[in-house]
Amino acid sequence: MVVKSQIKFIKSLQQKKYRNQHGMFVVEGVKVVKELLASQITAHIIYSTDVEFVKENIVVAELISEAELAKISSLSTPNKVVGVFNIPVPIEIDSNDWVIALDDVRDPGNMGTIIRLCDWFGIPNLLCSLNTVDCYNPKVLQATMGSISRVNIVYANIKDYLNKVQMPVYGAFMNGEVVYKEVFPESGILVMGNEANGISNEIEALIAKKISIPQFGTKTTESLNVATATAILLNEIKRGR
Amino acid sequence: MVVKSQIKFIKSLQQKKYRNQHGMFVVEGVKVVKELLASQITAHIIYSTDVEFVKENIVVAELISEAELAKISSLSTPNKVVGVFNIPVPIEIDSNDWVIALDDVRDPGNMGTIIRLCDWFGIPNLLCSLNTVDCYNPKVLQATMGSISRVNIVYANIKDYLNKVQMPVYGAFMNGEVVYKEVFPESGILVMGNEANGISNEIEALIAKKISIPQFGTKTTESLNVATATAILLNEIKRGR
Repeated sequence: MVVKSQIKFIKSLQQKKYRNQHGMFVVEGVKVVKELLASQITAHIIYSTDVEFVKENIVVAELISEAELAKISSLSTPNKVVGVFNIPVPIEIDSNDWVIALDDVRDPGNMGTIIRLCDWFGIPNLLCSLNTVDCYNPKVLQATMGSISRVNIVYANIKDYLNKVQMPVYGAFMNGEVVYKEVFPESGILVMGNEANGISNEIEALIAKKISIPQFGTKTTESLNVATATAILLNEIKRGR
Repeated sequence: MVVKSQIKFIKSLQQKKYRNQHGMFVVEGVKVVKELLASQITAHIIYSTDVEFVKENIVVAELISEAELAKISSLSTPNKVVGVFNIPVPIEIDSNDWVIALDDVRDPGNMGTIIRLCDWFGIPNLLCSLNTVDCYNPKVLQATMGSISRVNIVYANIKDYLNKVQMPVYGAFMNGEVVYKEVFPESGILVMGNEANGISNEIEALIAKKISIPQFGTKTTESLNVATATAILLNEIKRGR
């Protein structure tokens, strides 16, 4: 049974403020909950309408009715399972590998795609500026699938980080060097900018190497979407290995 | 002034059935409408609350009130302009260049991103299976920005096309050859599959070369999103040129 205070608690986790206060986040759907249960991330409690699912995960799972599921779900079509998990404490960034740094990426779909890309390309660290969208935002989680458990995501002041670190710093710009000419080292930092404004001036000043993806079609004012550009640049960094 | 029948007409263009019946589509927002006005696509009528915008485009634009805009807009926050444009008649596919073929891509955001990618990488032709999401769907248009005017988009039976054409046919699969080894020709076809099911069996049978993007991280069951994979593969096709 789900009591009123629990409904209120779960609903509150839709907001960053309460996620941070409780150190927990909520995800929905059988697939992603299963993946998180199999990961390092620990579950606080799982609610499910599926008897089999509850049997398999008896320690943390509780059987609920469809009506109860509708009450705690934020989806218009709830998908059997709502899970509350503990937000893992980020570990220190490993500067012997690649770091992707996001300078105020705001769109949850882009953020989710970028986390998935880090997972795919084996990028262990994602450094996010303090104004980057929260990675435990439900829309981000929907786009990451289970990848969130396999990438170390750190929110910090990027400027401070770039100032103290010894790694080569790359940044994605419209007018940088053609990325195809670049021979990438074993470790480094790639900064990606905000959807509307790109990389901020104060961060740009700390970037050693500006890189670009060439435009092959009719030259237009359009740019590539930040998630799409990240996909291409991570592939470029890794394809030589 | 916008009369009732016009409101009904504009609203009807949210649906594929009426878009096809009238041969028209609707877009919203200053930026994309301006870009379409500057393109080959012809406008039927533009409504705007912005006097300057109407003055600049006097032949097709009509000044309306905020209240009228709210009535014809499908957005919760309407953005000054609603434009009705004529759907261009697709031209025959140029088989001396690259063709991207979509086998039942259903998500409007993915479709929009793929159109933008074709524009960026100078891919002139996008061939869509009959069950692929309509490219004049408002959500697709929102994701394409002005790119829709620069890519020739053809809806047809992909199987019939692949059967009659002489170009090399590539397809994106989880278990294909590593794409980095591939030397791509000047022209060819790249087939991308449905979000959940990939490329269908009947189309797979017509694909000469299966290609894959290697996974560098911990091997998981996840795949790359179809739009992300298209970004990386188009970059691979073009980066050698």
